Amino acid sequence: MPGSSYGTMFRITTWGESHGKGIGVVVDGCPAGLPLCEEDIQTYLNRRKPGQSKYTTARQEDDAVEILSGVFDGKTTGTPISMIVFNRDQRSRDYNEIASFYRPGHADYVFDQKYGFRDYRGGGRSSGRETIGRVAAGAIACKILKELGITVTTYTRSIGEISCMPENYDFSRLPLSSLCMPDADAETRAQLFLDKCIERQTSSGGTVECIVKNAYAGIGETVFDKLDACLGKALFSIGGVKAVEIGDGIAVSKALGHENNDQYICKNGIPQKISNHAGGILGGMSDGSDILVRAIFKPTPSISRTQSALTKERTCREINIHGRHDPIIVPRAVVVVECMTALTLLDLLLQNMSSTMDNLRTIYHRT
Amino acid sequence: MPGSSYGTMFRITTWGESHGKGIGVVVDGCPAGLPLCEEDIQTYLNRRKPGQSKYTTARQEDDAVEILSGVFDGKTTGTPISMIVFNRDQRSRDYNEIASFYRPGHADYVFDQKYGFRDYRGGGRSSGRETIGRVAAGAIACKILKELGITVTTYTRSIGEISCMPENYDFSRLPLSSLCMPDADAETRAQLFLDKCIERQTSSGGTVECIVKNAYAGIGETVFDKLDACLGKALFSIGGVKAVEIGDGIAVSKALGHENNDQYICKNGIPQKISNHAGGILGGMSDGSDILVRAIFKPTPSISRTQSALTKERTCREINIHGRHDPIIVPRAVVVVECMTALTLLDLLLQNMSSTMDNLRTIYHRT
Amino acid sequence: MPGSSYGTMFRITTWGESHGKGIGVVVDGCPAGLPLCEEDIQTYLNRRKPGQSKYTTARQEDDAVEILSGVFDGKTTGTPISMIVFNRDQRSRDYNEIASFYRPGHADYVFDQKYGFRDYRGGGRSSGRETIGRVAAGAIACKILKELGITVTTYTRSIGEISCMPENYDFSRLPLSSLCMPDADAETRAQLFLDKCIERQTSSGGTVECIVKNAYAGIGETVFDKLDACLGKALFSIGGVKAVEIGDGIAVSKALGHENNDQYICKNGIPQKISNHAGGILGGMSDGSDILVRAIFKPTPSISRTQSALTKERTCREINIHGRHDPIIVPRAVVVVECMTALTLLDLLLQNMSSTMDNLRTIYHRT
Amino acid sequence: MPGSSYGTMFRITTWGESHGKGIGVVVDGCPAGLPLCEEDIQTYLNRRKPGQSKYTTARQEDDAVEILSGVFDGKTTGTPISMIVFNRDQRSRDYNEIASFYRPGHADYVFDQKYGFRDYRGGGRSSGRETIGRVAAGAIACKILKELGITVTTYTRSIGEISCMPENYDFSRLPLSSLCMPDADAETRAQLFLDKCIERQTSSGGTVECIVKNAYAGIGETVFDKLDACLGKALFSIGGVKAVEIGDGIAVSKALGHENNDQYICKNGIPQKISNHAGGILGGMSDGSDILVRAIFKPTPSISRTQSALTKERTCREINIHGRHDPIIVPRAVVVVECMTALTLLDLLLQNMSSTMDNLRTIYHRT
Repeated sequence: MPGSSYGTMFRITTWGESHGKGIGVVVDGCPAGLPLCEEDIQTYLNRRKPGQSKYTTARQEDDAVEILSGVFDGKTTGTPISMIVFNRDQRSRDYNEIASFYRPGHADYVFDQKYGFRDYRGGGRSSGRETIGRVAAGAIACKILKELGITVTTYTRSIGEISCMPENYDFSRLPLSSLCMPDADAETRAQLFLDKCIERQTSSGGTVECIVKNAYAGIGETVFDKLDACLGKALFSIGGVKAVEIGDGIAVSKALGHENNDQYICKNGIPQKISNHAGGILGGMSDGSDILVRAIFKPTPSISRTQSALTKERTCREINIHGRHDPIIVPRAVVVVECMTALTLLDLLLQNMSSTMDNLRTIYHRT
Repeated sequence: MPGSSYGTMFRITTWGESHGKGIGVVVDGCPAGLPLCEEDIQTYLNRRKPGQSKYTTARQEDDAVEILSGVFDGKTTGTPISMIVFNRDQRSRDYNEIASFYRPGHADYVFDQKYGFRDYRGGGRSSGRETIGRVAAGAIACKILKELGITVTTYTRSIGEISCMPENYDFSRLPLSSLCMPDADAETRAQLFLDKCIERQTSSGGTVECIVKNAYAGIGETVFDKLDACLGKALFSIGGVKAVEIGDGIAVSKALGHENNDQYICKNGIPQKISNHAGGILGGMSDGSDILVRAIFKPTPSISRTQSALTKERTCREINIHGRHDPIIVPRAVVVVECMTALTLLDLLLQNMSSTMDNLRTIYHRT
Repeated sequence: MPGSSYGTMFRITTWGESHGKGIGVVVDGCPAGLPLCEEDIQTYLNRRKPGQSKYTTARQEDDAVEILSGVFDGKTTGTPISMIVFNRDQRSRDYNEIASFYRPGHADYVFDQKYGFRDYRGGGRSSGRETIGRVAAGAIACKILKELGITVTTYTRSIGEISCMPENYDFSRLPLSSLCMPDADAETRAQLFLDKCIERQTSSGGTVECIVKNAYAGIGETVFDKLDACLGKALFSIGGVKAVEIGDGIAVSKALGHENNDQYICKNGIPQKISNHAGGILGGMSDGSDILVRAIFKPTPSISRTQSALTKERTCREINIHGRHDPIIVPRAVVVVECMTALTLLDLLLQNMSSTMDNLRTIYHRT
Repeated sequence: MPGSSYGTMFRITTWGESHGKGIGVVVDGCPAGLPLCEEDIQTYLNRRKPGQSKYTTARQEDDAVEILSGVFDGKTTGTPISMIVFNRDQRSRDYNEIASFYRPGHADYVFDQKYGFRDYRGGGRSSGRETIGRVAAGAIACKILKELGITVTTYTRSIGEISCMPENYDFSRLPLSSLCMPDADAETRAQLFLDKCIERQTSSGGTVECIVKNAYAGIGETVFDKLDACLGKALFSIGGVKAVEIGDGIAVSKALGHENNDQYICKNGIPQKISNHAGGILGGMSDGSDILVRAIFKPTPSISRTQSALTKERTCREINIHGRHDPIIVPRAVVVVECMTALTLLDLLLQNMSSTMDNLRTIYHRT
């Protein structure tokens, strides 16, 4: 039954509800000797902070992280790293009505069915605030990958019908972009579209894309714990994701074999793949080229429009969900996708260390 | 490093290479008292057997399963069920040349990178024959689900550009359909398309769809082990899958919130969802309506056309892959998708048994 | 590498160092609907509190627990229960010298060997304070077992050569006993013995015994996750334990088969075992009679006597460990043994729920 | 519920009943590149073969192992290694009466309680034959350890009251010793004692001791997955073990701190421990000195004397267990203890590879 842990060698356990005392995560299995401070974590948490533009909720969430254990003299010790973000707003007054009915598109009904009752305050454990733990842990994973030369870049690929064009990508604009889009022109159009969504009291879906560079070949296990399988689980575990693609993704269903196979040619004697339809993963393992994954998010289910909901007494009633809500999840989910990707890759990379007798002998005899 | 096990409470471990002595699986955690015989398993294995039409390879694979343990007096005993399918054709002569280069679209290169060398005979562990273990175990999972009233129906949704239309679905034709399509008209067109693929020495991608009926609400864990996350991993772990969709899947990126939320209406006093865009999963748990998943498969990488490959010496060379190969993976993958879905659902269902104190008291006091 | 989690279905993850910000635990997999408040936990934590007699250290540790998540309206919600005890005394000044050498009987040396450096303040992660997380989680496990009618009673069986006699057992005295001994006479002699240990600047070993009553037959898995195997791991994971016994334990090496087999006789038509040499466990499963386990603890390694230690520079030097230390671990370890036993039994009991098709059908059809 | 797997990185899954078709094991996570052949395994299996002296059962068990997967060109490939030993004698005729009652000291009763019924032929899954899978897998673990310079030596330490004296140890005699005793004199006396046991239709308990040499310091995780905790679980999971000791074991309960602490002295400038009461494990990790563990076995429960048993109808009746049975388990259990120790040590050693950033960088940059 326990479903709040992720990873085998780099294992995280998250806890906390949106209106409880706080949200936290315990990271177990972090290699010793990594320089780490709260600022390393805070930078990532700030990227998921709401209230950064009119397209994200105006709720005040000042998510300051505290490291409680596992770091000594500025370095990780190899023991569990516990991190906490205290919730500022624990008032539950706004949420009492919500206890009596089940909102469309939310987890209210299934929680009651599974557990007999639920913490109905602000979504409880199914709130978007749950991702704080993932991001805090993911910040550490990203730092380790960076030390090895591996980079993870993540951004909004599309919002509604508007998609960024790779030829317009300018990743330097991401930190300041309100919608996390690398294509300035697409962003302008997406903003206009979201303005209309707000006006129409509705919300929009979208796509997050993630590129991993410099991962060596051979990461991922061969049958069930394939790199793509683990990435699939990682991304589908983020609330609101309804599809995941690797490389060309859904387009391969219409592709032909001779086009879809990434063949090799030699340029100046150095062999290289002429294409990367596979998105850097073959046979469940990284193949040394860029790893490309996409998570497709549904529109925010919280909309201010009147909707028809189910009540606890099994009748239907019209409801209005008050408060200000994001017209789109995607821009705030970008860092979550980045962190889940990093956590997954690092975990498989650590598992990979014992894949050969040569590796084993190398480590054993140096110690 | 071990990646050949799947599941927590209903746990399977597969083993075997395409040209080794055999392929097998150990199922641990099967509840005691399930009537089980080899015929129950064989029926499922026969559905993935090649040579059933001109669209699947003509290789002779007579996959007869043997149950070696865990069944006594015709019922499961609660101890591990070991099953084996001996390989008939263990000749490796056809595969010696393959040792010297890496085929495009295959796992040859990454195996060598990860392990230092590989069993190059017929794909070794990355061969499609690896799925025999999944199907043998999945047959048991399907049988248990059936005992609870849960049915899993799986079929080819699309091949290339040709897609089955739900209004034409006739599931009764599936057992005799060469392409596992429930739409007779679509199948005829798909056959013509595949004939052209064979003629052009290429292959096609496609989509497998799976519908689960009568699963109660609340199956799935709330954060990382969500039902959709686990299904995502299950389906991406099948070789050749490049995208997975739940419910409306990729289409939600272009949907609006008020359309995408599945609202409730009351018909004759009984509340029901007016739509199922969510594909039966909310907040990571089944919501009581039909669960709908899709796995998107790439074209078979083995094609007879001349291709450019990488050699062990890091040069490029032209290769021709001899032998007869499937122009499409999808029809034979249908039963694999069905089995991975059943294994995932059953595992989470068993985990769900201890979700409440009421359940615990019920079981404890009846024993 | 992660070693700070315990359990499969009732899974706990502990974190924290003796001189960090705090110590905590996350409990994942607790069934929903259990009434729970901080007082339930505090009662158990108070039993391991130091400073309760002259035989336990006089350090002030006011271990007040706070529940941060997973409880709503006074009941567990099924989501992770995070608990924290803040450390009052985080001063590290007393511990700077300790960084330069490795104390005999402590983990100093092995931590440096494994991780390259260590948090040397007060034992860091290998401090006895690490058990706070186990006890907080174990208190919940004990409460669940109690709801099912299962009781766990734990006490000091022996200190040095002095052993409690079963014929003198009076369990009602345990809450007030400074040494947690159920035999008043033995306790008096043990106190005199410990006075002498203090005088001689040394410490003593001892034995903790634990009896579980009313556990039904069949708890425990059949090969590796046997009930006794899991109990063995649970108790050996407590710092200072050097032997574990089940039932007659070490004495069976000298027993004869016809004496050691627990035969049945019928009294008034009701069959009963005439003995319980097996300690309530057969074939790795509970057999319905009392479960009896013992953990044997070494003498506290922290003694004030001058000792010869290893330095970081690989020389030897004489050291004196300052401060007041317990002359014996055992009385404070009693509640830790109780909690590890309860956690183990509950975890296997939850796993046992899906052991038969009958159980599965019962739960599935009531929901 | 699945309890037939052991290990995290080097993971084994066993299956099979004493009177089914065979017994087997799947080893997942074995590093690639280890030279391996069936003879490597057979050597270990032969050490547990019955019928080697009059002190072990005369049943004919010709346990020839077959490797079915995971080895290619004489080396492990990194994929699962499946091994099988077919049962020669599958006749169940001798066991039909046994179905109606529960033998004292056996798992008959608990199996029926847990699963509702049992495979009553020859103990089914709780038969000693279950250890074949452990030994086959352990042989591989031992080979890997040997490649790293780590040796595991195991022998009968005591039978009944007769104990081997370390001053008489001659390990070279072990391969030919009928009782696996390194002390020739003790063995002679033990043989006389066992003759008397046979005459008296009873059986004897005993102790197996295991010494690991050349394991480096730092193996084992710091809280729950301590080396001693994992060894404790490993040894208690062997049928018939009722106590486990590390180092001085049970004697530490009567030791004093200043004696029990292993202090350091410098000899010719090289520091060394003056004693090894700890048995090579401190704080749950290997400390670089010899690791010493002991498993205490109960007398064989199968004795030919008349005993009083429980029937399925909950009455008592006298029974006689026919056939020839070992008067002692210990000599045949020696190799099982050795294998479980090796499996445990290797698994933790592989987990240890990612304990520091230095290790991670070393492996990542060499690949």
